[in-house]
Amino acid sequence: MRRRQIMGTTERAAELDAGVDESGGARPLRGGRWHVGYTEARHGLRNYWYPALFSHEIEEGTFRTRRMLGENILFNRVDGTVLAVADSCVHHMVRLSAKPGGAESHVPGTVTCWYHGFTYDMRTGDLTGVLTQPDCPLIGRAKIASYPVTERQGVVFVWIGDAEPGPLEADVPPGFLGEDHKVVGLRRTIASNWRLGAENGFDPTHIYFHREAPIVTGTSRRMPLGLNMVPGKEPEFVSAGGRRGLVDMLRENYEPLYEAEVNGSVVKATGTHRSTTEEGSIWLPGVLKITKFLPDPEMTHFEWYVPIDEDRHDYVQMLVRPCADADEERDFVAQYDGMWKQMFHRDGFNDQDIWARCALQEVFANEDEWSSEQLMKPDMALIHWRRMVHGHARGFQGPPRFPAPKGSVD
Amino acid sequence: MRRRQIMGTTERAAELDAGVDESGGARPLRGGRWHVGYTEARHGLRNYWYPALFSHEIEEGTFRTRRMLGENILFNRVDGTVLAVADSCVHHMVRLSAKPGGAESHVPGTVTCWYHGFTYDMRTGDLTGVLTQPDCPLIGRAKIASYPVTERQGVVFVWIGDAEPGPLEADVPPGFLGEDHKVVGLRRTIASNWRLGAENGFDPTHIYFHREAPIVTGTSRRMPLGLNMVPGKEPEFVSAGGRRGLVDMLRENYEPLYEAEVNGSVVKATGTHRSTTEEGSIWLPGVLKITKFLPDPEMTHFEWYVPIDEDRHDYVQMLVRPCADADEERDFVAQYDGMWKQMFHRDGFNDQDIWARCALQEVFANEDEWSSEQLMKPDMALIHWRRMVHGHARGFQGPPRFPAPKGSVD
Amino acid sequence: MRRRQIMGTTERAAELDAGVDESGGARPLRGGRWHVGYTEARHGLRNYWYPALFSHEIEEGTFRTRRMLGENILFNRVDGTVLAVADSCVHHMVRLSAKPGGAESHVPGTVTCWYHGFTYDMRTGDLTGVLTQPDCPLIGRAKIASYPVTERQGVVFVWIGDAEPGPLEADVPPGFLGEDHKVVGLRRTIASNWRLGAENGFDPTHIYFHREAPIVTGTSRRMPLGLNMVPGKEPEFVSAGGRRGLVDMLRENYEPLYEAEVNGSVVKATGTHRSTTEEGSIWLPGVLKITKFLPDPEMTHFEWYVPIDEDRHDYVQMLVRPCADADEERDFVAQYDGMWKQMFHRDGFNDQDIWARCALQEVFANEDEWSSEQLMKPDMALIHWRRMVHGHARGFQGPPRFPAPKGSVD
Repeated sequence: MRRRQIMGTTERAAELDAGVDESGGARPLRGGRWHVGYTEARHGLRNYWYPALFSHEIEEGTFRTRRMLGENILFNRVDGTVLAVADSCVHHMVRLSAKPGGAESHVPGTVTCWYHGFTYDMRTGDLTGVLTQPDCPLIGRAKIASYPVTERQGVVFVWIGDAEPGPLEADVPPGFLGEDHKVVGLRRTIASNWRLGAENGFDPTHIYFHREAPIVTGTSRRMPLGLNMVPGKEPEFVSAGGRRGLVDMLRENYEPLYEAEVNGSVVKATGTHRSTTEEGSIWLPGVLKITKFLPDPEMTHFEWYVPIDEDRHDYVQMLVRPCADADEERDFVAQYDGMWKQMFHRDGFNDQDIWARCALQEVFANEDEWSSEQLMKPDMALIHWRRMVHGHARGFQGPPRFPAPKGSVD
Repeated sequence: MRRRQIMGTTERAAELDAGVDESGGARPLRGGRWHVGYTEARHGLRNYWYPALFSHEIEEGTFRTRRMLGENILFNRVDGTVLAVADSCVHHMVRLSAKPGGAESHVPGTVTCWYHGFTYDMRTGDLTGVLTQPDCPLIGRAKIASYPVTERQGVVFVWIGDAEPGPLEADVPPGFLGEDHKVVGLRRTIASNWRLGAENGFDPTHIYFHREAPIVTGTSRRMPLGLNMVPGKEPEFVSAGGRRGLVDMLRENYEPLYEAEVNGSVVKATGTHRSTTEEGSIWLPGVLKITKFLPDPEMTHFEWYVPIDEDRHDYVQMLVRPCADADEERDFVAQYDGMWKQMFHRDGFNDQDIWARCALQEVFANEDEWSSEQLMKPDMALIHWRRMVHGHARGFQGPPRFPAPKGSVD
Repeated sequence: MRRRQIMGTTERAAELDAGVDESGGARPLRGGRWHVGYTEARHGLRNYWYPALFSHEIEEGTFRTRRMLGENILFNRVDGTVLAVADSCVHHMVRLSAKPGGAESHVPGTVTCWYHGFTYDMRTGDLTGVLTQPDCPLIGRAKIASYPVTERQGVVFVWIGDAEPGPLEADVPPGFLGEDHKVVGLRRTIASNWRLGAENGFDPTHIYFHREAPIVTGTSRRMPLGLNMVPGKEPEFVSAGGRRGLVDMLRENYEPLYEAEVNGSVVKATGTHRSTTEEGSIWLPGVLKITKFLPDPEMTHFEWYVPIDEDRHDYVQMLVRPCADADEERDFVAQYDGMWKQMFHRDGFNDQDIWARCALQEVFANEDEWSSEQLMKPDMALIHWRRMVHGHARGFQGPPRFPAPKGSVD
């Protein structure tokens, strides 16, 4: 697995892109054993852009450390630009941020290891000086890894991989990067593998457990109990410009069920206002898009499942809306802070997804359990997702070199 | 080990019973290496009835989840009868009780998985419906394991095994099921393997550390420091009707020691009222009976060591007394709640056994340590116990399929 | 590794001493792969004296238990003399100190196991009686290990090894045992392997991170940023009378650096009073000596890194000063308690060393990482230390037999 992480991923990415370019369109989802690649995806997918921080979390001059896909990454904003390097000195490999109070810098654009003064250029990772030993021959020769960073829509993205970074557009769902789009949201650490976040999110029938969410019952909304697949319909694999995703048109592909029989008794969905979500789609490297779930059809929800380690992920939740001007933007932010943050992203709705992932983690922490499932028709969506990971991921992350440091997750 | 759990236990149980039936009585304890079976018993003994809950812990309609011998079991009382199934949906195997607030049920006698509405008959474990997908072809074909349950003396017993359940009588000590017997007690989670509970309990000379228990000193009771085995006497192996046990007639088999010499100084037992317990006996699958320890000779103490995992057990303590009528019963309950619960079952006495087990756990968590002991004569009782487990257990539990869920132990 | 612990260490110690005796002086540090012995040293070095307790921590009659190099050791002061035995009964191997409240003793000079009254002579470890079974044939035949103890300078030292104990002088730095020397200090548990304590302490350029310690800035002291090795100078290997150490004459071997350039900017050491420490030396089995660091040149600092387990060590800090009479001694103690304990041994200075060790632990918990370092010239001090351990340790401790008991570290 390690080997694959270090070499081959670039070629693999090129091969995949070539496959798509030639046909000029989507490449069919491979059949066969998706288990192989899906198991290999345990630690995350390599050669993708991932959201690391919201822009407001890292001010000019500030350092922040984040553990992502098992790598410790140090971020720093310099002259307005966020830069990132490996949070590990070349000398004894200690974390540059291990000192209480955080990483130190004598000159903007550099980070100096608290231990022996090894100083790195934040742009390149080059060792440019050693304060305790100015003529150290390592200077100019040694370096720590630097990570490509791009900041868009108020979000700091970092490229994790060894291939040349591609366009951000390929790694975020369509519609995320609209110029007039305002992004609000939050992120938190969840105690499950990242794939379980993705599976729960894209699973069309998991709506069952949301039927009693405050956002549903408090608005007399009538959520279906289940969804029957319409014959001949299923999630569509989409491939364009390096982007790979699965789009499930929920209103078209499924017929909502508002009642069901249990041992002779009828169970009915509550609420009076019928409501189904228009579309759920999932994209590599693990981001879900939900349209027209909230009353305002212009609000779109995105959620990322960014691996921290094999048993934790960063759950990054975003709500996005086009805003014509500053007034509309202010209004949207106020609505989010006053209403949707609590009623949608927290305990009004998404917190239920969190305990579902944790319940799955108890089972699937053992990778073998994936072959014990007994699936039903709408689980086809999950199979599509797993196949997409198996067949279209640009690369697979290997196990982490360093264990999770104490206090690394902020 | 797994293999043995799944197949063979029935045959083994039959073989053991056959062995006994033919001779019409007790089968002699095998000599030789008891280590084999005793090590295999680490996760518990299979094909036995175990106490899971006190009746008052599970009211009509209520669900309770318990982890026993590494299996997660869901209990539910329906029309007065307690039923039990595997706490694990066939679909993605999540615990049916994982949802905050507990398992859900739309119709009495069924349990519905919170995730996708898979609904099971609590009596059979059959999948009888799927709320999110009413025509799911798994309905009527898939099922979760169901567990035989019987409720006697205010205690809910569950059968853990694959053989046909035998009579409860075979798996509880003689005298427990008397019709006019009232049972009171409590249960708690102890951080040691279940076998260490059994060893500490049946060990005749562990009374040494009880000599300063409040129940002893506070009543001027004179506990012996030690017990000398009377030549020719030892615990008797008892086998009848599928029941296997060892009975140690403490007053007959041992001579109490009230003083001892330590490097020339004499140590004397304190107290003025001589007292020895009449009988200590231990029974498969791991339950101790102590008669005539309390002032009222009609009160008998039973304690079960029910495996939760390999490093925890449920310590189920019961005090039993025949009661002629409701008045006597009320009086017994009042005495227990006011006096014996605290002075005998908790910190007046049995709490000392708990730290002894935890001290043993530090050593015997490593199974190999059992061959490093240096035993003395009265340890013959332990050897008898280990041999009985090795030679007479109906089956051995394998390692757990699912890890211990958070919050599973109530 | 186990084998080496049990046999061979004596021969090895003899061989090493022979090597030295023949040449009549220091044996050159071996070149080649120091990794072998240094990795083997993970659990500590065997056949040495280690500080276990300050004398004031163990009063007449008191028992104390300590975990050292993975062994549980029980100390007891009898008629003024501290004695030590294995904290593990021969019977079921439980810790003699496992009982809440601690080990029990009926007669001074003996310890009685709380479980079955097995009684040991604290001097020899011999089983001299069994309270529960006075005629037990194990009496006079079984024994627990006893540990040689010596008490000097207000410190209780224990010999951990199987070779005959050598003189204490060989295992403490020169100057520690001066007759008029008063020792003050403290000890605490640090969450890192013991070798990382030694490496951080002997590393000459780790002074960089101390430059902002309160003891430095609060006294306008000017600590160098770094140290340039003077050509031809390096730490000297010292071997005499069984003692092995490395002495680094900091003022002679290095040229202090008070400014350095970082990407074109100059960084200067703060403070106005120039100050370098005279000498740093490190001695087997892992004790550092620092002279002339404090304003009073007669105060010498010693610090021991005593392995508890592979991932924890006991950090024993001592400040020593010759005192002409009781008045001077009182004054020294008052100064220590009022000033140096806080300003030097705790958060004024040494606490910084503690987080450095914990940062190293994240990396070197994986032994393989030692081959990934990129070292610089002054790291020669570390290489000397590692080679000394590899080539001159009397023996290597194997992995612990019993896991760390709860509450064993006091």
